[in-house]
Amino acid sequence: MNYTLEKISELFEVEYKGDKNYSIENVSSIENANENSIVFLSEKKFLKSLDKSKARVVITTKNLSKFCKNNILITDNPYLLFAKISQIFNKNLKNDYEVHDSVITYTNPLSKKLHIEPNVVIGKNVILGDDGYVGANSYIGNNVKIGKNATIYANVTIYKDVEIGDNIIVHSGTVIGSDGFGYALEKNNWVKIPQVGSVRIGNNVEIGSNTSIDRGTLDNTLIGDGVKIDNQVQIAHNVKIGNNTAIAGCVGIAGSAKIGKNCMIGGGAGIQGHIEICDNTQITGMTKVSSNIKEAGIYTSGTPLMHNKKWLRNAVRFKNLNELFVKFKEKNKSK
Amino acid sequence: MNYTLEKISELFEVEYKGDKNYSIENVSSIENANENSIVFLSEKKFLKSLDKSKARVVITTKNLSKFCKNNILITDNPYLLFAKISQIFNKNLKNDYEVHDSVITYTNPLSKKLHIEPNVVIGKNVILGDDGYVGANSYIGNNVKIGKNATIYANVTIYKDVEIGDNIIVHSGTVIGSDGFGYALEKNNWVKIPQVGSVRIGNNVEIGSNTSIDRGTLDNTLIGDGVKIDNQVQIAHNVKIGNNTAIAGCVGIAGSAKIGKNCMIGGGAGIQGHIEICDNTQITGMTKVSSNIKEAGIYTSGTPLMHNKKWLRNAVRFKNLNELFVKFKEKNKSK
Amino acid sequence: MNYTLEKISELFEVEYKGDKNYSIENVSSIENANENSIVFLSEKKFLKSLDKSKARVVITTKNLSKFCKNNILITDNPYLLFAKISQIFNKNLKNDYEVHDSVITYTNPLSKKLHIEPNVVIGKNVILGDDGYVGANSYIGNNVKIGKNATIYANVTIYKDVEIGDNIIVHSGTVIGSDGFGYALEKNNWVKIPQVGSVRIGNNVEIGSNTSIDRGTLDNTLIGDGVKIDNQVQIAHNVKIGNNTAIAGCVGIAGSAKIGKNCMIGGGAGIQGHIEICDNTQITGMTKVSSNIKEAGIYTSGTPLMHNKKWLRNAVRFKNLNELFVKFKEKNKSK
Repeated sequence: MNYTLEKISELFEVEYKGDKNYSIENVSSIENANENSIVFLSEKKFLKSLDKSKARVVITTKNLSKFCKNNILITDNPYLLFAKISQIFNKNLKNDYEVHDSVITYTNPLSKKLHIEPNVVIGKNVILGDDGYVGANSYIGNNVKIGKNATIYANVTIYKDVEIGDNIIVHSGTVIGSDGFGYALEKNNWVKIPQVGSVRIGNNVEIGSNTSIDRGTLDNTLIGDGVKIDNQVQIAHNVKIGNNTAIAGCVGIAGSAKIGKNCMIGGGAGIQGHIEICDNTQITGMTKVSSNIKEAGIYTSGTPLMHNKKWLRNAVRFKNLNELFVKFKEKNKSK
Repeated sequence: MNYTLEKISELFEVEYKGDKNYSIENVSSIENANENSIVFLSEKKFLKSLDKSKARVVITTKNLSKFCKNNILITDNPYLLFAKISQIFNKNLKNDYEVHDSVITYTNPLSKKLHIEPNVVIGKNVILGDDGYVGANSYIGNNVKIGKNATIYANVTIYKDVEIGDNIIVHSGTVIGSDGFGYALEKNNWVKIPQVGSVRIGNNVEIGSNTSIDRGTLDNTLIGDGVKIDNQVQIAHNVKIGNNTAIAGCVGIAGSAKIGKNCMIGGGAGIQGHIEICDNTQITGMTKVSSNIKEAGIYTSGTPLMHNKKWLRNAVRFKNLNELFVKFKEKNKSK
Repeated sequence: MNYTLEKISELFEVEYKGDKNYSIENVSSIENANENSIVFLSEKKFLKSLDKSKARVVITTKNLSKFCKNNILITDNPYLLFAKISQIFNKNLKNDYEVHDSVITYTNPLSKKLHIEPNVVIGKNVILGDDGYVGANSYIGNNVKIGKNATIYANVTIYKDVEIGDNIIVHSGTVIGSDGFGYALEKNNWVKIPQVGSVRIGNNVEIGSNTSIDRGTLDNTLIGDGVKIDNQVQIAHNVKIGNNTAIAGCVGIAGSAKIGKNCMIGGGAGIQGHIEICDNTQITGMTKVSSNIKEAGIYTSGTPLMHNKKWLRNAVRFKNLNELFVKFKEKNKSK
């Protein structure tokens, strides 16, 4: 890979200033750049760091470009262009098609355009699209269908019957298609309800590490196109997530919740079962969503951070908050 | 599998109305039923969906049966009966006994009535009861004892010395018997306390995916009979959980906490270390339990969901809540 | 292993009372001790249990030793001494050097002083220091460097390029080096930012089960020496954690947060992205840290536990808390 300033400018159709033959070899943070790094500058406050940096190529806005020396790529959204340029410098995991001898597959033949690492186990009637990569020790159950260009890292588990679109990325430790948490109560005993639905995941979805997505009880758990799910997320049975919604780490979404399109769910938030959240909603971190959201906006629950001693004094008052309101009302009535 | 309305009625000892020879081939949601599906109706509001459905067999109460056409099974608890009928339609993972050639076991011989998938590794002196299933790439450590009819999915890890009863179900990614989080502080350094206890799990327990159950420090972590644990749950060392308690996704239970029988712990709740919770307690989702619970009931912490702007105004006031109480008291005294 | 009271006293340089030849064979809780167990007593309230116990050797303080019979080891910090003595009774996983025939390694040769269990997969150019143990079905990616005396349990995943110091312990299901959650927004679509940084972990770190540590976007995610991380923890890209900080179960730390040295983060706490927390800070369980902490101390958010009915009455008032403050101020002004 050898890219010049001019070539990058042509590839992404953006304006440049500087030495057209300047060689760009890697993407970097401003701090750790070398002379052939490309960096991005989206806020004026980082100019000081840029001055100290070895970077000689910067992606920035027209406005900020006035303060930059050397080689510049000009765009309205420096971070977005940086993301796209980064992709061309990211080494490809799938540089050859090879199914390791130790792979055990009950589906024969598989596509010839696959890279499958050691000890992967693949069930019956599996469809794995071209240009797929499966990392070591992963398991793909019977009748699973996965589209083209999949990247499934090591130690992933996909249960039977799950269907996934193109360009999926699944990080290690993640489990897709485990049973939903469904029981009927008989006296004090829980009677298991077999979870006979499955999971359907659209195109261009990324799922982080150690995340769980349960299969539906009768119908399917549904993850839309372009959804991005972080690490340690729990998605219960029959949840529906609209296209392009992003879900940060440690979020829990209870059974049959329905989340709209283009939502952003902050880390550690919890969505109660059967809740509906409309399109374009943002939930801040660690918020509990216990009622439907019908109007797009930013939603929060919880209390702010305090010194524990101060918190204790306030928290004990919270226990009598209703009483205070009642007394206050009485006092004001009585005058 | 071919079941008629009459046969199902006999098997579960419930009354039926309609065509005794009507064939039932699968369980379904009302929406996705076909003509040979069996569905359940437990609330009147779903009658409209039932009218539009292709379903011709419905499980319902005597009361609601008046509004239903076709073939009906009558019971006080339609969902419970549906759960039981579902089980007979759920395909058996263990339809044959086979230990795959790639399995590596240091225990010989194992029971002959096992189905063990590829690349499973089994330690020394392991006891695995009859009719057990172990999914691909799982690991079972030395001296582990597991009762009859186990279902252990792919990529599960069970550390040495763990003991588990009959009918266990463990979903993928779950870890049982990892070290508890125990250290003694020496100046600023943490000195590890070897975790030499183990984990004891009763009969009829189900554990979801990517859950962690730590071994005890000196004594055992104890999970009672009939306990149901969802995905992404953390159970620390020396926790004790009483029979038939259900724990939803993302719950964290800190060290030496003791939870009674028949409790229901909502998703994302946190139980502080050494806390005791009495039988029949319900904890709502994302509640922090920081004090003992000695009386059965429903318990909650947190604040309700708000628009972020409104939340900010209220949250900042929470910081001065004690002050408000004090001032209010003063004002009322002074009159 | 056979240790006498005198030998233990010599090894740890502490005073003893009693029969110097008394044989100590195991560490135990007071409740489950046998006659050759050693137990510890750090609080007077456990004297009653000690009286009923079969234990004949107790570690305690000079002060409490007056109430103890039999054989005694005297120290200022009984729990710490117990931790150290426990370590000598904890069986070594690495009692022989053996790389199982089924191990697939692209690095040849590996160190000869390793114990590697079945089905482990090791990438190219890996360095694994002497006296390392790797459990079954774990995966270690290309160019990973791990120091001496590592203990990596079964089903662990370490992505390429991760660097780890000496004496690491990693429990099962944990993933180190998965991609950070980084995207740039283009209209409604998320454009992935390749995560080309890595993870650097210091010496003497322990990481629990099913924890996730993401690689940095451009620079590295950094975990200092002596850091202890529990189960189900999420550490996002570019997080920095100072030496000897302890992080309990279910904690989530968002991108680029910087946590100081010797901090203690309680279970289920959440740290917002880009937050800085100073040295010696304690965060209580389930607290949300949404602002920088510049002064050491104990910090908390949330509300206390209540009966749900009472909570509902108070929680609804929280929605109008600002209004109450405003009205109260008005009333007092107007007089």
